[in-house]
Amino acid sequence: MQNIHGGDIYTNPIEYDFSVNINPLGVPEGVRNALHEAVNDCSNYPDIASGKLKNAVSNILSIPKEYLLFGNGASELFMAIVHAIKPEKTVIPIPSFYGYEYATIANNGDIIYYETKIDNNFHIYEDILTILNDDVDMLFLANPNNPTGNLISRDLLLKILRHCLDRNILVVLDECFIEFAGKELSMINKIDSFPNLIIIRAFTKIYSIPGVRLGYLICSNSSILNTIKINLPEWNISIFAQKAGCVCARLDGFIEKTIDYINIERQFLINGLENMGYKVISGNANFLLIYSKQPLYESLLEKKILIRDCTNFKGLTKGYYRISIKSRKENEILLNAIGEINTK
Amino acid sequence: MQNIHGGDIYTNPIEYDFSVNINPLGVPEGVRNALHEAVNDCSNYPDIASGKLKNAVSNILSIPKEYLLFGNGASELFMAIVHAIKPEKTVIPIPSFYGYEYATIANNGDIIYYETKIDNNFHIYEDILTILNDDVDMLFLANPNNPTGNLISRDLLLKILRHCLDRNILVVLDECFIEFAGKELSMINKIDSFPNLIIIRAFTKIYSIPGVRLGYLICSNSSILNTIKINLPEWNISIFAQKAGCVCARLDGFIEKTIDYINIERQFLINGLENMGYKVISGNANFLLIYSKQPLYESLLEKKILIRDCTNFKGLTKGYYRISIKSRKENEILLNAIGEINTK
Repeated sequence: MQNIHGGDIYTNPIEYDFSVNINPLGVPEGVRNALHEAVNDCSNYPDIASGKLKNAVSNILSIPKEYLLFGNGASELFMAIVHAIKPEKTVIPIPSFYGYEYATIANNGDIIYYETKIDNNFHIYEDILTILNDDVDMLFLANPNNPTGNLISRDLLLKILRHCLDRNILVVLDECFIEFAGKELSMINKIDSFPNLIIIRAFTKIYSIPGVRLGYLICSNSSILNTIKINLPEWNISIFAQKAGCVCARLDGFIEKTIDYINIERQFLINGLENMGYKVISGNANFLLIYSKQPLYESLLEKKILIRDCTNFKGLTKGYYRISIKSRKENEILLNAIGEINTK
Repeated sequence: MQNIHGGDIYTNPIEYDFSVNINPLGVPEGVRNALHEAVNDCSNYPDIASGKLKNAVSNILSIPKEYLLFGNGASELFMAIVHAIKPEKTVIPIPSFYGYEYATIANNGDIIYYETKIDNNFHIYEDILTILNDDVDMLFLANPNNPTGNLISRDLLLKILRHCLDRNILVVLDECFIEFAGKELSMINKIDSFPNLIIIRAFTKIYSIPGVRLGYLICSNSSILNTIKINLPEWNISIFAQKAGCVCARLDGFIEKTIDYINIERQFLINGLENMGYKVISGNANFLLIYSKQPLYESLLEKKILIRDCTNFKGLTKGYYRISIKSRKENEILLNAIGEINTK
């Protein structure tokens, strides 16, 4: 049975996993060392305040450490936000990450979907404002979006934030892939202007450590922060996550190197796929969305290559597949494999 | 500032930590190896179903794997239970672990405290049934209790469970320290008889890995289990916890060895402390509760020894301290240090 998410290497015998969106540069060496060192400290309770990690992240982002809350992965934070705010009506654009819906459902909240269109390459437009009325409590937005990689323009984002501020709508802005697009695109520098804004970030994707579980949120509204905090379990950040996170926060040049690498490999994959006649939605993240009439998921799985079948994304029909951007060697293997299927 | 919990080695410069209750035998070697191996897999998402871990634990406990749910520490499970059940009225005996109150408060539930008495060495008696009436939704019970180490007799436990079943009261039975007292004392073999029973266990204490974060719950009621599950974040169990947990579940003779060790060292500490004139509540766990009119916490901290000042436990007055049972060498150091304070 296919998992609802990508990355299910546990029920599939595979050699290449193009279904998860992690950095092709892999785990930075310093992070790997920190994880080994953490083994020596696993008999200690983790710091309940995540003190060192909080200092490191607040330094690198130039924000007060009081704005930060850490989670056992971004997924824990989505859940804690919903438990804290108890939104009765939530707007979620589709297609997007299933985690927003998963969290919202836990609290039995109503969901209004804002459906983006294939004709617009699944971009969000200003007409989203028409459904963001006084009845709405919360809006989830991903920038860049998953599975499209699409960015929302800064102008539109600011317009949405202002509109939501006027209507008391909390905006949960998921920036888990923003480092692949460019840190300067983040809304962190607007965090003081919008007490209705929560930004979600993860260490998972950019530092290739989804197995460790570490995410954080940024919010300037102390009342909202406190409510979320009391809905998070104590000691939620393991010794491993705290040590790895401190090293990640201090890495120099890693994100810039990643962006250069991704830009080249993204174009390489786009060219290869478009030359074979596929429609590609390229976006600005470390993955591509493509459309194929062939059963690409099944055919690649026969070759022990896992991609993300996007059929279960609301707002997508059968035929959409998400492919992560990996190393040149792996990308070539994927293109060759698709080529073989294509010419069958 | 003193933390509300023990184990805060992050704000105290200490050499010996008698404030946390972990196994003095330390981390089993196989577990340590598994954690190092996990570093190689940290680029993978953890198994969202915790498949291997679930099989291992269900095997060792001889229960269906459908009865199991894993948490990022027991603390995540307490919180998820409260988020799922939303109890309006909860009974918590005191003194006991603060985590029950912490979770209950997150949902703004009312708490009725059942106050145990020093004259009874803080034991729970049958009179607890009088407050467990139809209005009550949930009861937290710890067996053995923290910070007293007290066991509830099997007869009384069964009486409470039956009484609660008749009144639709969910019983959350915390067995996080049961391995130190004897596995045969567990209520696991009664799990099918009581659909109102949730048993909580942790790997933290018995395997000395609080830094890893891993707990689990056992319940035979699929409806309750499903509601709790949807209130837990996805991928909540890290690669580290899943790998370490699998090894822990297969360790042979470790718990028996631990009990033998603890029994000897408990008596050694009791004798030493009683000879110095302290009142000791010895219980059946890997810690002792003692009473002292001296400022024992502060005096030991000067010697870089951390114990748990229990002043902030509801139901205890100033003067109670919890001391974990450690190795003979460490226990001697503690007794000597207390002896020096005692004769001042």
